[in-house]
Amino acid sequence: MFDELFDLVQNLYPDKSTIPLHEPLLEGNEKKYLNECIDSGFVSSVGEFVNRFEKEVAQFTGSNHAIAVVNGTQALHLALYTLGIGPGKAVLAPSLTFVATINSIYHNGASPIFLDIEEETLGICPDKARTFIENKCFFDGNELKHIDSGLPIAAIMPTHVFGHASRIKELSKLAEDYSLHLIEDAAEAIGSRSNLKHLGTFGTLGILSFNGNKTLTTGGGGVVLTDHNSIAQQLKHLSTTARITSGYELEHDVPGFNYRMPNLNAAMGIAQLENLPNFLSKKRSLASHYHKIEIPNSKWLKEQNSYHSNYWLNAIQLDSSKLRNDLLTNALRKGILCRPIWKPIHTMAAYSKFPKDDLSVTEKLSNRIVCLPSGLKGLKLKNQ
Amino acid sequence: MFDELFDLVQNLYPDKSTIPLHEPLLEGNEKKYLNECIDSGFVSSVGEFVNRFEKEVAQFTGSNHAIAVVNGTQALHLALYTLGIGPGKAVLAPSLTFVATINSIYHNGASPIFLDIEEETLGICPDKARTFIENKCFFDGNELKHIDSGLPIAAIMPTHVFGHASRIKELSKLAEDYSLHLIEDAAEAIGSRSNLKHLGTFGTLGILSFNGNKTLTTGGGGVVLTDHNSIAQQLKHLSTTARITSGYELEHDVPGFNYRMPNLNAAMGIAQLENLPNFLSKKRSLASHYHKIEIPNSKWLKEQNSYHSNYWLNAIQLDSSKLRNDLLTNALRKGILCRPIWKPIHTMAAYSKFPKDDLSVTEKLSNRIVCLPSGLKGLKLKNQ
Repeated sequence: MFDELFDLVQNLYPDKSTIPLHEPLLEGNEKKYLNECIDSGFVSSVGEFVNRFEKEVAQFTGSNHAIAVVNGTQALHLALYTLGIGPGKAVLAPSLTFVATINSIYHNGASPIFLDIEEETLGICPDKARTFIENKCFFDGNELKHIDSGLPIAAIMPTHVFGHASRIKELSKLAEDYSLHLIEDAAEAIGSRSNLKHLGTFGTLGILSFNGNKTLTTGGGGVVLTDHNSIAQQLKHLSTTARITSGYELEHDVPGFNYRMPNLNAAMGIAQLENLPNFLSKKRSLASHYHKIEIPNSKWLKEQNSYHSNYWLNAIQLDSSKLRNDLLTNALRKGILCRPIWKPIHTMAAYSKFPKDDLSVTEKLSNRIVCLPSGLKGLKLKNQ
Repeated sequence: MFDELFDLVQNLYPDKSTIPLHEPLLEGNEKKYLNECIDSGFVSSVGEFVNRFEKEVAQFTGSNHAIAVVNGTQALHLALYTLGIGPGKAVLAPSLTFVATINSIYHNGASPIFLDIEEETLGICPDKARTFIENKCFFDGNELKHIDSGLPIAAIMPTHVFGHASRIKELSKLAEDYSLHLIEDAAEAIGSRSNLKHLGTFGTLGILSFNGNKTLTTGGGGVVLTDHNSIAQQLKHLSTTARITSGYELEHDVPGFNYRMPNLNAAMGIAQLENLPNFLSKKRSLASHYHKIEIPNSKWLKEQNSYHSNYWLNAIQLDSSKLRNDLLTNALRKGILCRPIWKPIHTMAAYSKFPKDDLSVTEKLSNRIVCLPSGLKGLKLKNQ
C-alpha cells in the first residue's frame, strides 16, 4: 500500500541508506561568516551579525521588529512574560502542538485552556473557539473570564502546524472582538503567508524558530516578531538582562533574562537567509512530488485557499490509527525516518488538569497523521 | 596617582587605542572545528561536539557530570528548578553578585534572602551566615525557616566573585550542618580551585558560564556541574524538553525546557578547552603584573590561603568611592575600559522588599572596587 510512497522517498534521497526527517542544508556561506565572526572577536551577545540578522528577518517577514533570542521556546517564554501573562491568567491554545507552546504558558505561571483544532489546517478552529468564548466565558467588567475556572483570559495562541497557516484572519478577528492578545507560534512557518502577509505578524507578537530541524537554522535560535515599538524595546531590554548603562555605571532596572542570540549563531543565520528563497522554492517542489502519490482513504495536508505554506514538514492524514502504525513501522524498516504528529498535550499528566473545550478533532487526528522526510540535504528533485 | 597603573595597562596591551575589559582569545582551532561542525550537519541540540564538551568539562573540573546549556543564567535557572526550589522557598544569596544569580531565584518563583560578604574574598561570609542562621532562623520540624518571613530555606548559593573562591569549605560545612543545598555560582571561576578541588564541585550543584566575556567562551553557553547521577539525569532530561522516545513514539513526561547548548557553540568550546591551560597560566601572569603596582590605601583582590584563582578579572579595592570615581573617570579618558563592581542587587526596586541580613560590608565595598582589563587578546607579557 505504501510502496509507491517509499519508492518516491528513496528516489528523492538517492544517496542515503537512512533518510532523516529533516536535516539542515549548510552549503552556502555558513563557514565563511562563521570564520568572519571568529576574526571579529564578537561571538557573544553583541555583534554585527545578530543586529543584521534581526534587521533581515524583520524585512523578510514584513514585521517592524524582530528580536533575536537563543531559541523558539525562549522566544515564546519572553513573549508571554513581556505581555505580563503570568500567574492567575489563562491562554487559549491548541493541544496538538509542540510541547514548547504549552510549556511557555506553564513556565510563566499561567494556565493553558485547550481548544480544538480543525481538520483542514490542524490549527485552532476559529468557529469552535468563538462558540467556546460565547458559551463558556463571560465578561467581568472589561475582562473576559472562563466560567468554570474563573480565570481571566489574556491571549489566544495558535500554532501554525508544520508551516501551514491556521485560519489566522478569523482568529485575529476573534482576538480583536474579545480584546485578547493574539500570539502566533509560527516556529515552523518561516516563509508561510496568508495572502502576502507573513505568519507571525498578525497579532501582538509572533515567534519563529531556527532550531536545527527548521527550514532555516542558526543551530539554536528564534525571534520574536512585533510591530509595536514599545513592546519591541521591552523584549530587547528583557532579553539582554534589563541592563541600563550610564558612563561607567551599569545597573538593571527589573529582573531580566539572558536570552540574546549569540553573534556566532546569527553569523550562520545570515548565510542561511541568503539561501532562504531557494530553500522555500525547493520545499514546495518537494511537496508537489509527495502530492502526486495517492494512498486510499488518506489525504495530504495542503495549504488552504489564500494561504501559502512553506511545507516545512510534509504530512499525510491516514484513515485510522492502524494504518498510521503500518506506515510508520514499514517506513522505519526501510530506513525512512517518518514521525507521527505530537501526542496531544492535554494528555500529559502535568497538563491533564487544565481546562479544555471539547477536543474531539484533536483526539481523532492525533493518531492518524505522519510526517515524511522533508529536508533539502541530499534531496534530488527530478523533472523540474 | 594612577599613572603607573595606566602605563602598565597600556604597555600590556600596546596595540590597542581602546583597551576593553575582557575580549575573548579565538586563535586556536575555533574555525577548524566550526567548519567540521558545518560539514557534519549537526549544528543544533545533538552532536559529537556537545557530548565531548560535556565530557571534557567534567574531566577538567573533576565533576562526575557536566550538563551543557545555552548560558550560565539558564544553568542557574535549571539548577534551582531541578532541585524543586520554587514558590514559597528561599535561597540564601549574596547581594554583591551579577544580577543573574538573583534573577534565577526570582524567575523560579523563590525568594532571595541577602547575606553579607567578607572583604577578603567578596564571597558570602560563612561566619556571618552562620550567625544569621542561628539567630534569625529556626527549625520547624526538619525544615529550616527564616523567622521574619516564615520562608523555608532550601539552599545557600555563593558566587565566586571574579574567579576568586568564596570560603567554600566553611560554606559547605554550614550547608551540611543545616541540611541546605549548596549551589555554587562559579560562572566566573573556570580553573579556580580550593586546594585541588575545582570550584563548582563542592555542593549539590554548581554552574560555569562560557559567555563571551569569560575565560573560556562558547559564544553563549554554560554547564551545570554535579556529582549526583540522578540529578544529572534529570538536568539533562529537563534541558532537552523532557522527551521520552520509544520506537517512533515521542512524548514528554513533564514540562521541560529547551536549554541544550547547540553543537555549533560546543565546537568552539572544544577549541577553547584545548587552550585553557595556556589561558589560565597567562591570566595568572597578568595578575602578577598588576600586583606589582601599589596604590596608596588600596589593595588588589588576591587569592586567599589554600585557594587558587583564575584571576578572571583583576580587581582593586580603593579607599573611598571618590577614589573609585577618579580611577574610573581617568581610565576612561585614556581609553582603558575599567568597570566598577556591580550595584548591590538588594538596591534594585524589584529586590528591595526581600529579606536581608546586615549588609554593611556589601554596602561599604560596593562603591570602592574597580575591575581592570584582563583579557588575553592583544596582551603582551614581558620578562617572562
